[in-house]
Amino acid sequence: MKTLRGFGSDNNAGVHPEIMAAIVKANIGHVPGYGEDDYTREAIAVFRRCFGEETEVFFVFGGTGANTLSLRAAAQPHHAVICAKTAHINVDECGAPEKFSGCKLLDFAAPDGKLTVELIRPALHGVGDIHQVQPRVISISQPTELGTLYTIEEIEEIAAFAHHNHMILHMDGARICNAAAALDAPLRAITRDAGVDILSFGGAKNGLMYGEAVVIFDRHLAQDFEFIRKQGAQLASKMRFIAVQFTALLSGDLWLRNARNANRMASLLAERVSALPGMQLTQPVQANAVFASIPPKVIPALLQEYFFYPTENPGEVRWMASYDTKEEDIERFVETLARLLDQELAKGPAR
Amino acid sequence: MKTLRGFGSDNNAGVHPEIMAAIVKANIGHVPGYGEDDYTREAIAVFRRCFGEETEVFFVFGGTGANTLSLRAAAQPHHAVICAKTAHINVDECGAPEKFSGCKLLDFAAPDGKLTVELIRPALHGVGDIHQVQPRVISISQPTELGTLYTIEEIEEIAAFAHHNHMILHMDGARICNAAAALDAPLRAITRDAGVDILSFGGAKNGLMYGEAVVIFDRHLAQDFEFIRKQGAQLASKMRFIAVQFTALLSGDLWLRNARNANRMASLLAERVSALPGMQLTQPVQANAVFASIPPKVIPALLQEYFFYPTENPGEVRWMASYDTKEEDIERFVETLARLLDQELAKGPAR
Amino acid sequence: MKTLRGFGSDNNAGVHPEIMAAIVKANIGHVPGYGEDDYTREAIAVFRRCFGEETEVFFVFGGTGANTLSLRAAAQPHHAVICAKTAHINVDECGAPEKFSGCKLLDFAAPDGKLTVELIRPALHGVGDIHQVQPRVISISQPTELGTLYTIEEIEEIAAFAHHNHMILHMDGARICNAAAALDAPLRAITRDAGVDILSFGGAKNGLMYGEAVVIFDRHLAQDFEFIRKQGAQLASKMRFIAVQFTALLSGDLWLRNARNANRMASLLAERVSALPGMQLTQPVQANAVFASIPPKVIPALLQEYFFYPTENPGEVRWMASYDTKEEDIERFVETLARLLDQELAKGPAR
Amino acid sequence: MKTLRGFGSDNNAGVHPEIMAAIVKANIGHVPGYGEDDYTREAIAVFRRCFGEETEVFFVFGGTGANTLSLRAAAQPHHAVICAKTAHINVDECGAPEKFSGCKLLDFAAPDGKLTVELIRPALHGVGDIHQVQPRVISISQPTELGTLYTIEEIEEIAAFAHHNHMILHMDGARICNAAAALDAPLRAITRDAGVDILSFGGAKNGLMYGEAVVIFDRHLAQDFEFIRKQGAQLASKMRFIAVQFTALLSGDLWLRNARNANRMASLLAERVSALPGMQLTQPVQANAVFASIPPKVIPALLQEYFFYPTENPGEVRWMASYDTKEEDIERFVETLARLLDQELAKGPAR
Repeated sequence: MKTLRGFGSDNNAGVHPEIMAAIVKANIGHVPGYGEDDYTREAIAVFRRCFGEETEVFFVFGGTGANTLSLRAAAQPHHAVICAKTAHINVDECGAPEKFSGCKLLDFAAPDGKLTVELIRPALHGVGDIHQVQPRVISISQPTELGTLYTIEEIEEIAAFAHHNHMILHMDGARICNAAAALDAPLRAITRDAGVDILSFGGAKNGLMYGEAVVIFDRHLAQDFEFIRKQGAQLASKMRFIAVQFTALLSGDLWLRNARNANRMASLLAERVSALPGMQLTQPVQANAVFASIPPKVIPALLQEYFFYPTENPGEVRWMASYDTKEEDIERFVETLARLLDQELAKGPAR
Repeated sequence: MKTLRGFGSDNNAGVHPEIMAAIVKANIGHVPGYGEDDYTREAIAVFRRCFGEETEVFFVFGGTGANTLSLRAAAQPHHAVICAKTAHINVDECGAPEKFSGCKLLDFAAPDGKLTVELIRPALHGVGDIHQVQPRVISISQPTELGTLYTIEEIEEIAAFAHHNHMILHMDGARICNAAAALDAPLRAITRDAGVDILSFGGAKNGLMYGEAVVIFDRHLAQDFEFIRKQGAQLASKMRFIAVQFTALLSGDLWLRNARNANRMASLLAERVSALPGMQLTQPVQANAVFASIPPKVIPALLQEYFFYPTENPGEVRWMASYDTKEEDIERFVETLARLLDQELAKGPAR
Repeated sequence: MKTLRGFGSDNNAGVHPEIMAAIVKANIGHVPGYGEDDYTREAIAVFRRCFGEETEVFFVFGGTGANTLSLRAAAQPHHAVICAKTAHINVDECGAPEKFSGCKLLDFAAPDGKLTVELIRPALHGVGDIHQVQPRVISISQPTELGTLYTIEEIEEIAAFAHHNHMILHMDGARICNAAAALDAPLRAITRDAGVDILSFGGAKNGLMYGEAVVIFDRHLAQDFEFIRKQGAQLASKMRFIAVQFTALLSGDLWLRNARNANRMASLLAERVSALPGMQLTQPVQANAVFASIPPKVIPALLQEYFFYPTENPGEVRWMASYDTKEEDIERFVETLARLLDQELAKGPAR
Repeated sequence: MKTLRGFGSDNNAGVHPEIMAAIVKANIGHVPGYGEDDYTREAIAVFRRCFGEETEVFFVFGGTGANTLSLRAAAQPHHAVICAKTAHINVDECGAPEKFSGCKLLDFAAPDGKLTVELIRPALHGVGDIHQVQPRVISISQPTELGTLYTIEEIEEIAAFAHHNHMILHMDGARICNAAAALDAPLRAITRDAGVDILSFGGAKNGLMYGEAVVIFDRHLAQDFEFIRKQGAQLASKMRFIAVQFTALLSGDLWLRNARNANRMASLLAERVSALPGMQLTQPVQANAVFASIPPKVIPALLQEYFFYPTENPGEVRWMASYDTKEEDIERFVETLARLLDQELAKGPAR
């Protein structure tokens, strides 16, 4: 097995040892399934300590499930979900949100992946027009899929706009811990307290094996969620093994340590690669993603040694740092990259 | 935490130590996500050794996901799925099959949970009538939700009927290993070779932490399955941790050891409880489930000590043996039950 | 064109002359589309005079549309709709209700097509169980698809049960006028006043060209109905031509005259055919349908001369009288039938 | 009733007298429902004379129904439909296409409402990527919602691109007759012969009361269409009354006379209004739509006298000519407009 630590995605990493230890420890005897067990109750309590007692928490299998169920809970099929063109729900979930919620996504181009009130205001044009889907949810990703961050004030502004117009604010927090670490703010401050109504809380990209949580602050949205989760095929039978991972992540500071490391490593990677000839960052590095332009011919050679995703923009690549990225991983990667760039540049410009 | 081994469900058990060891062992370095890794390739190869090289295998998170995606792959929304009234897809998946496939389920009452050609033939009445959904899939559970088994000949007969009428045979094999063990037949003999076209292969009820497999024998059904899985929110990012569990289960005889133990323990439990006063088996015990009638007043007291599910028939209960059930667990359970029955019977009949 | 008046269905008839006259009269100049015109406002006012001022009315294209949208407005995809096995929504709409509402239908066998509280009470078993769809709507057809009628008291009893259990009562009134005529009761008395929350009001089977109305008494269900109608592709652009048909039908007594004729002709037909040798009524004739058993070999010969539907019970047929059925039509039909029965009986019993 | 002929929409007009005469004439006796009648067979034959014998034709109630069912027949839920941002399916059907087909719409901005191969080529980027919906249908409107026309060559080019990439070309022909009239080409030449696979053939905007046709040239798409139509609640019971309208429209040259008049009147209207002070055409007038910019303050005053739709661009309006528009209607309208412009301009510029 080839298991070199690279920068393909933060979900290419394995499971943090403390998470794995929690899983192993919970593997004892029988407990009821489907979340009717004490491990799950404990994990929910941990979330409530973090986000407030009024919080409702539902564990699901994965991130697409968390997003899709959130939208289904918040919107009817004649509603619309406002999102950025680059949003994961818009481009990376194979239409799961539309299929399961029945809603239309209204996407808005944002160069840095961040919605603004200014940008999305035109979506109000069709409100009340029976021929048009009715805007009901604004979904933002924090950090965005381009590695950028909303400030708390920016979230608050969107939340105020949403609520003023009877809409719900959903946050895709697949990497929410990286955002909190980068903003140096408590998880609650950048979500519930900033006006978020329903949050997809990511686990797998911050050291978990599997499992995400739908965290609901507007309790109306939680009313039928148990049924929605089951109907969405996201109810785990052996729920304890998801629950204990979240307890391990959130009861202490593991979530923060992991996220900080990933963010710091991304900064370092950005610093190192942007110093190389022919390389240029294409997005500010605010969390754990590095977007960069690269001589296109280098990409295939680099892919031979490291798995990663070119973006749909020719000559642009995405590299993600992870909770387990080490400085030595960056050194090795940068060396390889430098070598390939050298070889390419030696050939001189294409004629 | 209360972790007494009981008979609530085979998914109340934890993870078999060999499975857990495989998970821990795979937790090394980085590998690509979403099944593009060597662990997943290996697991698929193991399935193919078991079911034939032409087999397509897709890992998903859970059993409802496996069933729901299978039906979606096999049927269009104007099609119907024929199943038993007691089928898991009909009564225990909160409408997930209908929601995701768009299909209608045509259910047929069967006292032992087993469909027969005779029973379902009336479903052909509406074929070609544009006002009616068109039968397209027959879904059988092996073993059934009532703990009974189809013989290979019975499966073959249904398969022949299905194929003669241009239908597809789906098998819900949430406990398929228990069926193979009970029939003393290879997994392939009771599925592919008996005419099954698409199989939900269960893992969690036979010692896995999470993960099921959709195993496709009719390759047409596999054509777009990767997209269907993603759109159904059943594509795991860290796929390796599902894959290695199946490799551990199927590459040796762990699947069989686990299933045999569960079946044997169910037989023993059935033998012991049916000897108690006031107790009577209500279904033949052919795999790892025991259905029994019990003086209704004993149920609440027993539930104080053991978690289990009463059925919707008053005075009937379901008990499941598991891969990790031990004889001592049965002794303890039977002692408790005997004590409660004594207490109840001492009160004399209700007037 | 072969246009002999027969008994195939009340929708085989054409358009009542008064309805046609109203259509022709409305064909003048331009008016806004999609119901924003005075003709539509007038028709809604006519409905409100009939059913009460608080009534919300939405015109749609057809009966399947009316039923499907009603269920969608009343239920979420994790809900269930309780209905009779013979309900039109269950067997004659090609899964449209499931497809559009996402709901599961829970059907109950009723020999006369009528639900009772006793019959449907078991549907409450799964309330609150997250693995099961949650009963939310009871749908009854008045008259039933078997030509039988609910008394007002029977409707009230079902309504009370529905409301006590937080459910909504939907009535499929494809032939609601026939029911009111047969019960000699105002339309309001057998719907709103009896506890119905949402009604599919049929037009095409009582002399209209096309068009049905969803009539909503529980205003919560009307909240988003305009969007649901549009999304369900049931919003007519030239709405005035549906509206004026309903105005013509309901502003005077045309609805009653038409329905009474159909009912009376069904009675007469039943009387006449049941007097023939080998014929026997299989359902009480309470509205405009006649169900009868007939020597099976006569069916093909009769179908040569008259279009009609055999039921799925061998040797049973359904004949419908219409608003335009005349006594002479019955004479001619009965003569034909008598002749064919004679011929068949002359052959003696099959050996 | 206010029935002044204006320019709000071509569906604000009533029914052409020849169409109405055909309806009235068909109102005789009984015929089987749901299209099993000779009137429907005749109408289908008329379509086949027009489009070729291999054509499959399915009548539906309305345009949203025709589009929605077409997409459902052509695509699976994990597929995508490529369309212009201004497409009716994208902005004016309240999400019906997504809801019924389950597909995602990928919309592309086109200033004149016309797709080009260049514009949509980026949609191929995600082909084969399991995280992304797979492009399967290209849907173009002819004429477009902005009143512009594709040339035959332009359609051919898109069709070639579609077929080369295993996609299907759908044409929303709500005003297809206007397009054929404007291009002075047979209906077949701008559809089937240009590479269109499935066509929504509009009736209501060219003089029909109600009814559209789904015309299928790629017979694979027709295979299950009868069931799809029924499940989509678009199957009319008294089908003859849709059928005879199309027979009246297409068996002679009524379709062409109607369309030519509408197109000619739009040209005249455009010529007249563009000569007024402060008015400017914003799209070329190629069929029966006129888009113009107008001093915004005039809009409310004009709306007092004439119903029409402002577009979502401030100060832009859409006016549609109809089959029954007369020169005198234009004179009256232009007089009114001129008067209001005068009044507004007399006030001088806002300060």
